[in-house]
Amino acid sequence: MTSSTVLRKAVETYWAAADVRDWETFGTTLSDDVVYELPQTRERIRGRERYLQFNREYPGDWRVRIERIVSEGDQVVTWLLVETGVEAAHAVSFFTGDAEGRIAAVTDFWPEPYEPPAGREQLVERY
Amino acid sequence: MTSSTVLRKAVETYWAAADVRDWETFGTTLSDDVVYELPQTRERIRGRERYLQFNREYPGDWRVRIERIVSEGDQVVTWLLVETGVEAAHAVSFFTGDAEGRIAAVTDFWPEPYEPPAGREQLVERY
Repeated sequence: MTSSTVLRKAVETYWAAADVRDWETFGTTLSDDVVYELPQTRERIRGRERYLQFNREYPGDWRVRIERIVSEGDQVVTWLLVETGVEAAHAVSFFTGDAEGRIAAVTDFWPEPYEPPAGREQLVERY
Repeated sequence: MTSSTVLRKAVETYWAAADVRDWETFGTTLSDDVVYELPQTRERIRGRERYLQFNREYPGDWRVRIERIVSEGDQVVTWLLVETGVEAAHAVSFFTGDAEGRIAAVTDFWPEPYEPPAGREQLVERY
């Protein structure tokens, strides 16, 4: 397998394991010194143990489903639908890999719904 | 060039043209029946002419810079830093291509800053 394929499989395993709270398998996808960043809150978590704890303790009854996955070289991007009950949220994650094809860095975006600005109603439909 | 390379170049041209408001060049990257979607507002725009008008009329003095681009097959993803004055915003766009390597669909996410929830301060640093 190319390193790109290995990283893509690591990311698929990462989400499948997160979905069922299999933190042992989840941990095998991560580089020892994985770095997690959330640009929206400007939070950063360093290292596998802290990142595992963050995920283990993350509240809520969420499930994840991959809507899109795009992989090139040492980069993978996923767009998730995250089910938390009534409505699905979107999450976008940018991954980079280490030399072994494990996840070296994750940058997450959690875009929230908002009301469209006025002035473009004639161009758009709502769905 | 592979179709993947053609689409990637179309996306690079799309952002370079948007950055300098060259709507003629921007339009050449788009499929006639391009579909633009904003899941956060649940807005959809159909067709090149309406989508060009939407972009021409989009307010503000923004500049865009590609932070990441990931391309695979008929898909491209970009993560942009959008400068609008004081602070840079993030934008993530998922593209798919048509048979000619033009942009057939664009899905944009505009994640906004938010305050981190309490309870994980011991795991994170702020940046």
